[in-house]
Amino acid sequence: MPFTYNRTIRFHDTDAAGVVYFANVLSICHEAYEESLAASGINLKGFFTNASVGFPIVHANADFLRPMYCGENLTISLIPQKLSVDKFEINYEVTNTDVLVAKAITRHVCIDVSSRSKQELPDEMIEWLELNRRDAEGAERRKSREVM
Amino acid sequence: MPFTYNRTIRFHDTDAAGVVYFANVLSICHEAYEESLAASGINLKGFFTNASVGFPIVHANADFLRPMYCGENLTISLIPQKLSVDKFEINYEVTNTDVLVAKAITRHVCIDVSSRSKQELPDEMIEWLELNRRDAEGAERRKSREVM
Amino acid sequence: MPFTYNRTIRFHDTDAAGVVYFANVLSICHEAYEESLAASGINLKGFFTNASVGFPIVHANADFLRPMYCGENLTISLIPQKLSVDKFEINYEVTNTDVLVAKAITRHVCIDVSSRSKQELPDEMIEWLELNRRDAEGAERRKSREVM
Amino acid sequence: MPFTYNRTIRFHDTDAAGVVYFANVLSICHEAYEESLAASGINLKGFFTNASVGFPIVHANADFLRPMYCGENLTISLIPQKLSVDKFEINYEVTNTDVLVAKAITRHVCIDVSSRSKQELPDEMIEWLELNRRDAEGAERRKSREVM
Repeated sequence: MPFTYNRTIRFHDTDAAGVVYFANVLSICHEAYEESLAASGINLKGFFTNASVGFPIVHANADFLRPMYCGENLTISLIPQKLSVDKFEINYEVTNTDVLVAKAITRHVCIDVSSRSKQELPDEMIEWLELNRRDAEGAERRKSREVM
Repeated sequence: MPFTYNRTIRFHDTDAAGVVYFANVLSICHEAYEESLAASGINLKGFFTNASVGFPIVHANADFLRPMYCGENLTISLIPQKLSVDKFEINYEVTNTDVLVAKAITRHVCIDVSSRSKQELPDEMIEWLELNRRDAEGAERRKSREVM
Repeated sequence: MPFTYNRTIRFHDTDAAGVVYFANVLSICHEAYEESLAASGINLKGFFTNASVGFPIVHANADFLRPMYCGENLTISLIPQKLSVDKFEINYEVTNTDVLVAKAITRHVCIDVSSRSKQELPDEMIEWLELNRRDAEGAERRKSREVM
Repeated sequence: MPFTYNRTIRFHDTDAAGVVYFANVLSICHEAYEESLAASGINLKGFFTNASVGFPIVHANADFLRPMYCGENLTISLIPQKLSVDKFEINYEVTNTDVLVAKAITRHVCIDVSSRSKQELPDEMIEWLELNRRDAEGAERRKSREVM
């Protein structure tokens, strides 16, 4: 099963059109990434604050399929994938009671924070990638078996 | 017991000083208010979107006692109080593993949304106020009994 | 010349990594869109609040090329393009003293807000699209002439 | 004259009630503070990112007098005041075409960032405080003379 994160839409997520402001959907997806890191034992404070290694996002994209309203309960599922020795991407699916409302991707590179030069992914990230990838593959295998 | 809301600090809550951006503490308190409304059976989408009655904040204040870092798990407890027929305020206490890190107040007036004129609090809000006030008083009574 | 919008990076745009939080780059691009609408005479309050016609974003993507720091002065240039009778997209280039630091695209559909069904772009948006497209083409023609 | 900062309300400042989300008013006030620091020659990147001395907000309050809508042009005027050797506060008035729409205060302490212990305000901040205080006093003196 891919990692999933539940998130209620908050008033500050919305805009004057009455629905979630588009860029906030990406922030909500990033929260799912943070939660999955924490779930694999990574200390978020150390990871995101004053760390020597960072994973800045170099690309992001999102498709917004349906409007999202304050108070709705979203489920964000997340599948990361290693792209190279210093790069990975994460696919997110945002659903509201099983209806897909948005999809997104974030692509990250691993850098040395002080020089901002690329460096190889550290062990804890490779473990996180493998753990979540395997989990997701298991779910896909089960799904195809059910279809057969 | 006052209503409590648990909230992990997210990366987007923080700023370049490495801690939660001050105004975001008020947003997190507002989330607790939303969660307590939902807990008392109020539909948040109807409450915050296209409603005929609104409860805009006319005053807010906050004391920031300690820095808050990404990944920390906060508990926000909330005690509302009716101030008059058309006004209430909410007291929030934000704690991190039992240490008080921030306190805040929001004061709300009840208005007719189309005319923006003041109007009496509707029944569902009076019930919410009484429910949460009573809960909080119960906790305080228990606390003083323990002290005696 | 494409429409340009100048924007100083604010403390609340940044995160604990010390640079602009990725999703906020899209918000800054959206500000440029708002400013270009206002520049063509569109009333933003009527456009974004309680309007009968809306232009929700159905797709967005961004490439983040360099970190952006608090206090830096960005220039966002914007070129919109009509895609069909009910759809347009906007290309944004974000530069910091002539260095490209990010690129983004937002794709919008025109809807009737109450039914949320697609409808043809209204005249004021077609004018805005033509005005900004022509401006941008003029700049490109001038640029190719300079190259020759 | 007190320092003033002009700011158009952006779509992302608003919420599903159609007006500026309350906590964002404080963020807009903080932008005015940032702009006044820059105007007195302080480098914002150095000031807010990786600095050894910081000025965290320990208290904030705001009164929200009128709703603010997307596209409106606000003027924020700012008067700082030194409270003690390690503390100052800033008073903000937010107006929309000369009508007061909000007032706010932020109170700051000066700390050594690594130890988070209080320390005396550095010279550049004392200069900024004196410059903006004097400017504001001048305006008040002129105003009382006009009244006489």
